[in-house]
Amino acid sequence: MNDIFYFQPETLSRMGFDLCRASGSPQNEAALVSERLLKADLTGHPSHGIIRIPSYMAMLRHDWVKPGAVPEVVRDNGPTALINGHRSYGQVGAEKAMTVAIRKALEHGIAGVGVTNLAHIGRLADYANSASRAGCLSLVFTSCGGVSTLVAPFEGLARRMATNPIALGIPSDREYPIVMDMATSVFAEGKLRVMLAAGKSAPEKTLIDKDGNPTTNPADFYAGGALLPLGGVQGYKGYLLNFMVEVLAGLLTGGGYAGGDPKAPFNNCTLMIVIDVQKFRELPLFKSELESMIKFLKDTPVAEGGEVLYPGEKEFRHEQAVLKSGVPLADQTVKAIQEELDRYQVPLRLADLGQLTPLVA
Amino acid sequence: MNDIFYFQPETLSRMGFDLCRASGSPQNEAALVSERLLKADLTGHPSHGIIRIPSYMAMLRHDWVKPGAVPEVVRDNGPTALINGHRSYGQVGAEKAMTVAIRKALEHGIAGVGVTNLAHIGRLADYANSASRAGCLSLVFTSCGGVSTLVAPFEGLARRMATNPIALGIPSDREYPIVMDMATSVFAEGKLRVMLAAGKSAPEKTLIDKDGNPTTNPADFYAGGALLPLGGVQGYKGYLLNFMVEVLAGLLTGGGYAGGDPKAPFNNCTLMIVIDVQKFRELPLFKSELESMIKFLKDTPVAEGGEVLYPGEKEFRHEQAVLKSGVPLADQTVKAIQEELDRYQVPLRLADLGQLTPLVA
Repeated sequence: MNDIFYFQPETLSRMGFDLCRASGSPQNEAALVSERLLKADLTGHPSHGIIRIPSYMAMLRHDWVKPGAVPEVVRDNGPTALINGHRSYGQVGAEKAMTVAIRKALEHGIAGVGVTNLAHIGRLADYANSASRAGCLSLVFTSCGGVSTLVAPFEGLARRMATNPIALGIPSDREYPIVMDMATSVFAEGKLRVMLAAGKSAPEKTLIDKDGNPTTNPADFYAGGALLPLGGVQGYKGYLLNFMVEVLAGLLTGGGYAGGDPKAPFNNCTLMIVIDVQKFRELPLFKSELESMIKFLKDTPVAEGGEVLYPGEKEFRHEQAVLKSGVPLADQTVKAIQEELDRYQVPLRLADLGQLTPLVA
Repeated sequence: MNDIFYFQPETLSRMGFDLCRASGSPQNEAALVSERLLKADLTGHPSHGIIRIPSYMAMLRHDWVKPGAVPEVVRDNGPTALINGHRSYGQVGAEKAMTVAIRKALEHGIAGVGVTNLAHIGRLADYANSASRAGCLSLVFTSCGGVSTLVAPFEGLARRMATNPIALGIPSDREYPIVMDMATSVFAEGKLRVMLAAGKSAPEKTLIDKDGNPTTNPADFYAGGALLPLGGVQGYKGYLLNFMVEVLAGLLTGGGYAGGDPKAPFNNCTLMIVIDVQKFRELPLFKSELESMIKFLKDTPVAEGGEVLYPGEKEFRHEQAVLKSGVPLADQTVKAIQEELDRYQVPLRLADLGQLTPLVA
């Protein structure tokens, strides 16, 4: 079977909330984690969405996630801070870090806050958007601690780095955020999982197999291959960017570097840099110039079918569509989540809550 | 003729110093500008080196560079500042910004300093290295103000962005700096000038011509074509990074965005973010973990002839080689510089100071 079920967004966030509550999370945490996972599906990044629930529950049983853990500020000096997540859900630790960073940026003009010892934080864009709502620019750099190696360094034939994403949040008066969020590898590992599930090949020059040979078969990655850094023939630039994120998010926070501690728990250590635009210039002027720049870029001539998008525009459109069609989940995902619902005795039959056609055709 | 002259480094820095002095620069400025240009040649980036002298002198006659201009801190709030370069040499304005940023980072833990209204700043790595020597991490983002468009946005068929580089400086105990410095386009425009001069083709999928068609002929770029953003099939990521630099370096500082003011003077507006590592963890621990990470990466298996390099290693090796061979300059570059020497009545015959074979064969 390769059926697709379509769900009302509220159904999935409620399901996620109930499962988090049943597995030990307090209310706020259950709401935050379930909303963030759903948001990834809404914005067209299912690799970071509801599909993650079984792996989150597995991390919980591994003690890599501790429901209800309270992140602690362990260093606090004016505009900088370092936070120990105490193995919290990544969303909890990272949102705490962003909250501290925004407060410090509004007070001092710029802030740098690191957080480590926390689980998977989901999409970086969510944290950047929090800063944007406060009128701040934000940079988010995230690595994976010592355990995760997925990406080969430029000219290397084996995995030695993580996918190390970067995000930038930009304040605007738009209803929907202007935000970039991208892995410094050719793409995030989750995209490969989606290709594998769909029986699709990866694009040329994005993967190598366990012997270092080029391949387009996603299965070769899971048999010991590697993702390549962003950039193709300019892959040394993707490698440099990946190295940059490892230093800022991993080394600076004390979270370690990919491969440096293969037995460590998964650790989405993160550095957030937040800047209060008003300390540099008037925010309305910044915003209006941003709009002029976006208009200038979108007016670029394109080929038939092409279009220049601003950062976040693709996600905006995806969300508008999915709010109508419902959130699609493959039946195997529904089954895997059902096992978790049963395990934690949440009285829901997920398949019965979806339907096999889009909500609005 | 396509002769190559080889020069002792001291000969070229002395020549640059004398020319800057003769064209109106005070001693410190003449020393800084000439040393930085030479350093670009030494590290293997001649696109940012001595070859720039004629264009620097042209900017000077255009009043785009004002010798002796003193950059001014126009906003100063704790860890942030904004500097007006008052049309200084870019090296002067940007080094001032980095000096202020380092002082602020050492006091507050993190600093964000913007600078605008200044000429070409040369290689970003030089500023990042200043921060590294102070035990600080540094991020440098540079755009080109309103005038310069060289790069097409992803899916666009015409120039609308600048090459917008990023640098990261990383403190270490090494004699030679660990530093990355890269354009967010496929490569810097200067590299194209080098290809054109050498009669070489550009790599596939790096250029389009004035009608938006793919080309490998560098001349098509100068006839109205465009560079592509970094990334090949993942070029939307290079576009996002380019957009990021434009926002941080151009919009935040008030320097404008590429194409927004085509009659404005060239303006290498820049944002520098400097972080005092000690505010997060002990610097010696950071440095020793960095060395472990570099060793782990360099131990990656590679194909025959391949090698994993750390950021800055290629530049280190190039400098070692050029210090022996002498700095190569094409005869057309020597002639163009000679015109400037004659114009400002510097009594030097540059060609007589070089030789037509490497200094050490």
